[in-house]
Amino acid sequence: MRILVDANVPGAEACFGPLGELVRMPGRAIDAAALQDIDVLVIRSITRLDAATLDTAMARGSRLRFVGTCTIGTDHVDRTALARHGIAFASAPGCNAEAVVDYVLGSLLTLAERQGWRLAERRVGIVGVGNVGGRLLARLRAMGIACLACDPPRAEHEGSEDFTALDTLIDECDVLCLHTPLVRGGLHATHHLLDAQRIAELAPGTLLLNAGRGDCVDGAALRQRLSGSGDITAVLDVWEGEPAIDPALRDLAAIATPHIAGHSLDGKLRGTHQIYTALSRHLGLPARLELNDLLPRPPVAHLALEGGLDAEETLRLCLRAVYDVRRDHDSLLRESRRLGMATGFDACRANYPLRRELSTLTLELSGEAAAHAAWLQAAGLRLA
Amino acid sequence: MRILVDANVPGAEACFGPLGELVRMPGRAIDAAALQDIDVLVIRSITRLDAATLDTAMARGSRLRFVGTCTIGTDHVDRTALARHGIAFASAPGCNAEAVVDYVLGSLLTLAERQGWRLAERRVGIVGVGNVGGRLLARLRAMGIACLACDPPRAEHEGSEDFTALDTLIDECDVLCLHTPLVRGGLHATHHLLDAQRIAELAPGTLLLNAGRGDCVDGAALRQRLSGSGDITAVLDVWEGEPAIDPALRDLAAIATPHIAGHSLDGKLRGTHQIYTALSRHLGLPARLELNDLLPRPPVAHLALEGGLDAEETLRLCLRAVYDVRRDHDSLLRESRRLGMATGFDACRANYPLRRELSTLTLELSGEAAAHAAWLQAAGLRLA
Ligand SMILES: NC(=O)c1ccc[n+]([C@@H]2O[C@H](COP(=O)([O-])OP(=O)(O)OC[C@H]3O[C@@H](n4cnc5c(N)ncnc54)[C@H](O)[C@@H]3O)[C@@H](O)[C@H]2O)c1
Ligand SMILES: NC(=O)c1ccc[n+]([C@@H]2O[C@H](COP(=O)([O-])OP(=O)(O)OC[C@H]3O[C@@H](n4cnc5c(N)ncnc54)[C@H](O)[C@@H]3O)[C@@H](O)[C@H]2O)c1
Repeated sequence: MRILVDANVPGAEACFGPLGELVRMPGRAIDAAALQDIDVLVIRSITRLDAATLDTAMARGSRLRFVGTCTIGTDHVDRTALARHGIAFASAPGCNAEAVVDYVLGSLLTLAERQGWRLAERRVGIVGVGNVGGRLLARLRAMGIACLACDPPRAEHEGSEDFTALDTLIDECDVLCLHTPLVRGGLHATHHLLDAQRIAELAPGTLLLNAGRGDCVDGAALRQRLSGSGDITAVLDVWEGEPAIDPALRDLAAIATPHIAGHSLDGKLRGTHQIYTALSRHLGLPARLELNDLLPRPPVAHLALEGGLDAEETLRLCLRAVYDVRRDHDSLLRESRRLGMATGFDACRANYPLRRELSTLTLELSGEAAAHAAWLQAAGLRLA
Repeated sequence: MRILVDANVPGAEACFGPLGELVRMPGRAIDAAALQDIDVLVIRSITRLDAATLDTAMARGSRLRFVGTCTIGTDHVDRTALARHGIAFASAPGCNAEAVVDYVLGSLLTLAERQGWRLAERRVGIVGVGNVGGRLLARLRAMGIACLACDPPRAEHEGSEDFTALDTLIDECDVLCLHTPLVRGGLHATHHLLDAQRIAELAPGTLLLNAGRGDCVDGAALRQRLSGSGDITAVLDVWEGEPAIDPALRDLAAIATPHIAGHSLDGKLRGTHQIYTALSRHLGLPARLELNDLLPRPPVAHLALEGGLDAEETLRLCLRAVYDVRRDHDSLLRESRRLGMATGFDACRANYPLRRELSTLTLELSGEAAAHAAWLQAAGLRLA
């Protein structure tokens, strides 16, 4: 069995090496010809697998039986064409959700410090309660933060008790976190879900964070609100027109990052492992390798705290020791000025430094700091 | 023996309690009447001890025999008047110099990250090589960073081999750190030491840091250079006209802080301990208490690193875990906008959060990280 894997998929040797002959190739170069003698294909979103490519490959006698993408998105794969050829398919939903939650908590606590407020005093509205939003909601609620959740598609299926309408969130929340996919049509379309009118309705002091899709927010309207009274704060990881984003909006956002909220090594390896698990099941083999076998020891392994910091200060310190979101803000500014917007935006993503998740840090608490143990565990930290 | 101590002097009970009867009072309220039944006075810079106050107190029969200020500055004390009344005097030179060095290293490494350079590639010029500048020079040289030192008064006394002229530093250095006191007249005056002409001569890309005295730099000329081509970077902790500083210059500085570079708890306790030592000597008593007996355990006690970071990244992480200079930049911006410039500037200083020095962190290195051990020790870290 020959397994072709995008050269940028980490952990592939450990996962797929024992299952067959591993072939690696830059994802962009994977085309019909490359699929000639291949049984299994493992890709990322850079590889477009459309009907024409598949039809050509299969007509030329490819043995392709399984396609896995180590990403949460599947737009780059024509799943109907795969089904037509009887090729099994798997993706990696939620693989990088924890990384996005780290990004959100790090951004909120950075702005809390900068603006002089405490997270415990805020009510957070979460729009889109899927893999990312659901984990964010669980962590915040475990920390005792007041939250409202908005997800009309889920409300329709699961009943509306646990969900609240977007306009109520806009009325009642101090912080609004968007984690919706881009849905262009239908009852629950998300294109410009935050349109000019809703942006105008945000109360002064509101913090708007978008780590879902750029098109869910009307960027021109947001720019106007930020440059006008400047009475709300924006944290933007996703943008309309990526990578050629609006430089004025970049400058007005308190935190502006190049679509990297989910870019942890842990998330990438979790994606590889999810595809490995799916492939093993497809082949009827046991999945012997655990995700933990793939994860290297983290650079920042252990932190001992004695007291003198309150719970939120402690969490902020731990998050930053693992991943400081301001680094990515600074590098987007620097690289987009140096190389031009689109090239700079892409360069930041291409040269993204190794990043780990909060859960890789072991915390040792003694003295007064021990009082924060339960809360910090709720926030996602591991205690020694 | 009655010892009057400013209420804001930490560690006073442990140091002075065993030597006599301790009386505490807000420093601002200490006047001639307060010195009535006092033998020893321990103050900070908020207490003005001028000739009139002293003459009145002594005329009313004060027993004052010793005055100590737990600060490096002595401008608030009329030492001639003290000598006239036969009162001994001590100050605490260099007590907070290590804190300023932490501030400088933290600022340089923060800008290195933001602007995408490495400290190892830079040549640093240090102007004023006293307690602060001397310690900075020693740490940087131990780290293998190329440095030039400028201190004409020292060059005059010690010979010029180790010192370089200011204009050579301006020509040859990428980073210029000012640690000079304010000297208004004479051959080595420092008022506007960096005047419009020298500011104009700074090469594009230069980083100018001032943590000495605000009046050593022509603020209007610096503002002009920063707002014009914007091709140099400024880090400013001290300002002309404090606390009513120029808001435009505040906005143009990459890091703008309210004269807090030296504000560590360690520095304050070192100051108390220096006065305790001087008083003990004055009284002919042994100084039994060590500085370490005064220092509480630090909030961030221990950090274990595995590798995956280079030496400078490791130092940056450690410095920030102990003290992140961006916090003080953010709070100056916030408070000066909220309360007005002068009030906000003073509020930041009055409510300054507890800060420790880099040397309070114990670092445990394993794996690849162990390779950085010697360099990190040179930079001021303690290894487990
Ligand atoms: N910034 C990043 O780096 C990053 C990382 C991961 C995911 N994402 C993006 O975040 C989004 C969410 O990711 P996920 O993994 O949680 O997806 P998901 O599919 O698990 O969840 C999306 C949720 O949004 C809900 N939703 C759909 N339409 C809605 C509407 N009109 N209003 C409110 N909710 C609505 C869905 O019902 C679903 O529960 C995706 O667009 C994904 O691409 C970004
Ligand atoms: N920002 C802060 O929080 C902070 C903290 C500590 C000290 N300081 C200030 O930093 C300055 C230095 O402090 P220090 O404790 O090192 O003082 P110091 O007296 O020990 O050293 C000052 C040095 O500057 C030199 N000098 C004098 N005139 C000079 C000139 N024209 N050119 C170059 N060098 C000259 C002196 O010879 C001396 O070596 C002081 O003004 C002090 O108030 C600020």
